[in-house]
Amino acid sequence: MFRPTCLCWLVSSTSGGKFRQINKSLEATEPMTSDSPQPADLVLAVLGVGLLGGSVATGAKERGLAHRVIGIGRNPERLQTAVDRGIIDEFVTDPAQANGSWDIAVVATPVDRIPDDVRAIASVSRPGAIVTDVGSVKASICAAVGDFPADGVTFVGSHPLAGSEQSGFEAARPDLFEGRVTVVANNGPATAVSRVSRFWSALGATVVQLDPKTHDEALATTSHLPHAVAAALASILQSDQRILSATGFRDTTRIAAGDPDLWVPILLSNADALDVSLDRFAESFELFRTAIRNRDASELQKLLQDAKTSRDAL
Amino acid sequence: MFRPTCLCWLVSSTSGGKFRQINKSLEATEPMTSDSPQPADLVLAVLGVGLLGGSVATGAKERGLAHRVIGIGRNPERLQTAVDRGIIDEFVTDPAQANGSWDIAVVATPVDRIPDDVRAIASVSRPGAIVTDVGSVKASICAAVGDFPADGVTFVGSHPLAGSEQSGFEAARPDLFEGRVTVVANNGPATAVSRVSRFWSALGATVVQLDPKTHDEALATTSHLPHAVAAALASILQSDQRILSATGFRDTTRIAAGDPDLWVPILLSNADALDVSLDRFAESFELFRTAIRNRDASELQKLLQDAKTSRDAL
Repeated sequence: MFRPTCLCWLVSSTSGGKFRQINKSLEATEPMTSDSPQPADLVLAVLGVGLLGGSVATGAKERGLAHRVIGIGRNPERLQTAVDRGIIDEFVTDPAQANGSWDIAVVATPVDRIPDDVRAIASVSRPGAIVTDVGSVKASICAAVGDFPADGVTFVGSHPLAGSEQSGFEAARPDLFEGRVTVVANNGPATAVSRVSRFWSALGATVVQLDPKTHDEALATTSHLPHAVAAALASILQSDQRILSATGFRDTTRIAAGDPDLWVPILLSNADALDVSLDRFAESFELFRTAIRNRDASELQKLLQDAKTSRDAL
Repeated sequence: MFRPTCLCWLVSSTSGGKFRQINKSLEATEPMTSDSPQPADLVLAVLGVGLLGGSVATGAKERGLAHRVIGIGRNPERLQTAVDRGIIDEFVTDPAQANGSWDIAVVATPVDRIPDDVRAIASVSRPGAIVTDVGSVKASICAAVGDFPADGVTFVGSHPLAGSEQSGFEAARPDLFEGRVTVVANNGPATAVSRVSRFWSALGATVVQLDPKTHDEALATTSHLPHAVAAALASILQSDQRILSATGFRDTTRIAAGDPDLWVPILLSNADALDVSLDRFAESFELFRTAIRNRDASELQKLLQDAKTSRDAL
């Protein structure tokens, strides 16, 4: 059992105006300190300008959260296109070139690259800056990043539960986080955790503060296990059966279309918790298989009803 | 390997006009006989005016396929409401009351009631009439219905791959079958199979003719197995993890919200084929579980890539 600290700022899912009003009331209850610039003064760096990084960038610009957004990446042609499309204001291919002028840096690279990228950008950040990430696992990332602050730079892990099978900043949307949950790891300094929480909240997200291990155990069941299950199901479809797959099969296997290059590191970074979830699913599946094998209508009815009750509660 | 006879009448997904044109060309290549009334002269009976039966009724009326649609059911208040809403033209609660005046009768009751209902309505149909159904399994229904024709009445099994978690005629839509596959069992008399195929095609469906056993084996994998898998997954979600379930979990478990009263008979009516599919899934899932347990990145990459290739082909 965990008891999430849920900062449910009843943000309207459509109204930018409403967001501002709510943000103002937040500021009233949690006054910014001198090292917490007002949103409009904030400089934001985004390392990895893809779907998530691009959505953070364009969301922050559209909502007036940052007056300058610096994209950091490896491919200058791609980054120039992101500038041309107004997703970022400028770019560098080497974090050291940007003089560490950001207040918040968001690392939005694949899970297996996040720890190195966090350390790299932290090493060139100005004192007082905060580094966060968007990785789907938290305990292994926090452990790999290691001790902070270095020179007054703080790391707080984040995980916005948003995304899609699409990738690249072409799919980025300023409202990607609107009404979606973002987990902020609560194992950092309280002030930094609060600032990072307010940042995601200002992007429209519902913020849930959790310790990294609890996050990983929950996500093993809600995200990583379903990915393995959907993939195992998609794998056994024979080509001549495709025409007989309707919306049920398509929905159940949708996430199996995700990029293996992204998902292998996610699943293996959370393998300890995922092992437990895989075993729990195997036991649950075995109950259904046994009931069907035994042609046991009353047991199957009970199992399906329990499943329906659980699903209907979402 | 099966080779479906796919009657892909490039029906526009929106244009009723286009449908008529294509239907006319079909009539030109397959002239109606004297006992095959022109669509506008057809009398249609629908036994079970729920989501599927109601959609057949309102679709046939809206497209001018039938000049009279008789609803048959048990609850006169509900049936009167369906008349008031224009879904059916009239109703009876006892098939014998309607003088067997229909040309085609569609049985759209739950799977475990279909065989009895088919025999009941066939026994009061006029000679030359055709009875079909919408059941999600075909071999057990065809076997339970038994020998036809009786007094010149013919049964041809159907399965439109359309539906939703919703139920009742309130959710019925005239375009429910538009662009969706409907399987027509090809084990009946060729003329009747052809007439039933044309009926579904005229409702906008892409018709695939298959033998009942091949249908059931395919649907075990594409529909019945995913239902058990989605339910097994939904069952293990803990209540405090709900807030951390995003679209991935929701899509993967969506069908687990289906009505157990409908799904127990479906799964158990196809239990022989489903046993095989459950075993195949268990083997596939075990490959993923083993790769994750062994932290075997290259094997996991291969498995996820195979799954993605299969899913992307849909």
